[in-house]
Amino acid sequence: VTADLPVPPVLPLAWQGDAEDGTLALLDQTLLPGRELVLLRRTTAEVVDDIRRLAVRGAPLLGLAGAYGLVLAAREARDDAQLRAKADSLARARPTAVNLARAVKGALADARVRSAPPPRRGAVLLEIARRLEAEERAACDAIARHGALALGGLRRVLTHCNAGALVTPGLGTALAPLYALHHRGARIHVWVDETRPLLQGLRLTAYELGKAGVPHAVLADGAAAGLMRRGLVDAAIVGADRVCANGDVVNKVGTYGVALACRHHGVPFFVAAPRSTFDAATPTGAEVEIEERVGDGTRYLAPGTAVADSPTTEPAFDVTPAALVSAFVTPLGTFAPTELPPALFA
Amino acid sequence: VTADLPVPPVLPLAWQGDAEDGTLALLDQTLLPGRELVLLRRTTAEVVDDIRRLAVRGAPLLGLAGAYGLVLAAREARDDAQLRAKADSLARARPTAVNLARAVKGALADARVRSAPPPRRGAVLLEIARRLEAEERAACDAIARHGALALGGLRRVLTHCNAGALVTPGLGTALAPLYALHHRGARIHVWVDETRPLLQGLRLTAYELGKAGVPHAVLADGAAAGLMRRGLVDAAIVGADRVCANGDVVNKVGTYGVALACRHHGVPFFVAAPRSTFDAATPTGAEVEIEERVGDGTRYLAPGTAVADSPTTEPAFDVTPAALVSAFVTPLGTFAPTELPPALFA
Repeated sequence: VTADLPVPPVLPLAWQGDAEDGTLALLDQTLLPGRELVLLRRTTAEVVDDIRRLAVRGAPLLGLAGAYGLVLAAREARDDAQLRAKADSLARARPTAVNLARAVKGALADARVRSAPPPRRGAVLLEIARRLEAEERAACDAIARHGALALGGLRRVLTHCNAGALVTPGLGTALAPLYALHHRGARIHVWVDETRPLLQGLRLTAYELGKAGVPHAVLADGAAAGLMRRGLVDAAIVGADRVCANGDVVNKVGTYGVALACRHHGVPFFVAAPRSTFDAATPTGAEVEIEERVGDGTRYLAPGTAVADSPTTEPAFDVTPAALVSAFVTPLGTFAPTELPPALFA
Repeated sequence: VTADLPVPPVLPLAWQGDAEDGTLALLDQTLLPGRELVLLRRTTAEVVDDIRRLAVRGAPLLGLAGAYGLVLAAREARDDAQLRAKADSLARARPTAVNLARAVKGALADARVRSAPPPRRGAVLLEIARRLEAEERAACDAIARHGALALGGLRRVLTHCNAGALVTPGLGTALAPLYALHHRGARIHVWVDETRPLLQGLRLTAYELGKAGVPHAVLADGAAAGLMRRGLVDAAIVGADRVCANGDVVNKVGTYGVALACRHHGVPFFVAAPRSTFDAATPTGAEVEIEERVGDGTRYLAPGTAVADSPTTEPAFDVTPAALVSAFVTPLGTFAPTELPPALFA
């Protein structure tokens, strides 16, 4: 933490102790904002389950959960085959965010891990996870500074889903520049899409903006375009689950509609992401598997207990083509989609 | 009901009895689909309250509720001043739908009402309301036929909010052509925007499509643009709360974003409305008062009991500029926004 940046309003994940006896502490994000429950995890299976049920969420945080989960896997595994199987269960716990599989596979392929005697592997994996955590935190700070510059005098900023402190070990991605500007005294106002079906905006973004004291208001996702037409939105900034090689952005369902409305109204549309989100292995958005969560969200929040017994379709993500992105805010700087530097994908 | 059209799947309003002793039966739409409660109303104040709390909703039905409400007002009023005051309370119960104020003021200004001796006024007003009901039902049938023609071979049709049988005494407006096509054996599939914050799509459109056996699936509002990008939507059709003189459409918040996404993807965007929705007195959408329902919807459906204690903004409607409308489906036929006939506004 330095003078130009605030302390993150919330810490969603922390490893406590050493590799042999330590635990992974996770804030259960399914219970927020009503209850701040910290889960203390000691097994790979628990972490896989936490990832699957969205207790841990957000691309950067999923990578960290995978990396720390590997420390637990190394402790449990009796041989290489078991370690690989457990690593695989972590990497596959959710398909869309590239960070998860990349962090798990990257750590497992690390020369230090491969050359370590089995009893030492956990300690080496813990060191790798800690380094990843520090890198992600520093990436948030860099995004905060570059994003604050990119936003300039734009003050009424719309965001979708939650790409804040809850998805990183630092200030977040999309919200980081807003925290920085607010910390410096700029009169920021954040429009928070509630983000159906799982309400990450209403539950999580509103929660952490409230903790940080950043002025904001929550709106139904369908209200965003109308706000733009009324001249009430100066910019939009969102995170990403994956940025493809051509700049296509895979992010929470509803992002694409925000980008279309921004383009129509001449409102800048920014995507903030750390390097771990840029994926050279996926050429375009057309190649990304879109998770469908049948029936677990759209009917979840209907009034009372009974709703129409209708089928639902619940794509969890959508693809925003690169051409609709005004600029990517990254730890390396702010770039037009046609000028993304290769280093982001390295 | 004729051979080419089905019976409406639900009847949301009916006057029972004569002007002196009759009651207005209203299906309480706030309880649907969990409970089908019919309210029997005998006072103007009850009907005003039903309109305000959205138990009765939808532009055409609001007009009818106003017209039948006047019969109750005439029964209660001891003099002309009282009748005018009660009529005024009906006309002002909700500001956005033009049908309500128009039906009330139109009936009150009718020469037959003005020339009738006070004891006869209720009977004359009942006759006027019944005629309006028959006209609205016939308008639904005409919209059903014109819309079925306009949709042609388009089969996967997206709709927003509820503009079906529940908002009219007939087959509805936006849903009427879909009921007609389904009745004729076309393989219609309806994409139903859930329509936050009050979920009229998930609660009401899904309910009546289910009753009618029309295949459909509910989606989060933010998923619509992504469905279009994936080529899964052939057309969109919505109702309107008001069509301005220049063709601007005032409708449920979220409609504008659907129209923008349709334009971007080359998906036809239809607006279905009876004549009572066309308002020559409002030149453009900029002149329409947009109801804001602070705090009663966006936080209403959050999981559990606690949500972030954040401000919300809740515009109930938005304005879709005429240029985004492919065609208006009306009882007089289907028209481009630049070719709306004056008779629609008469």
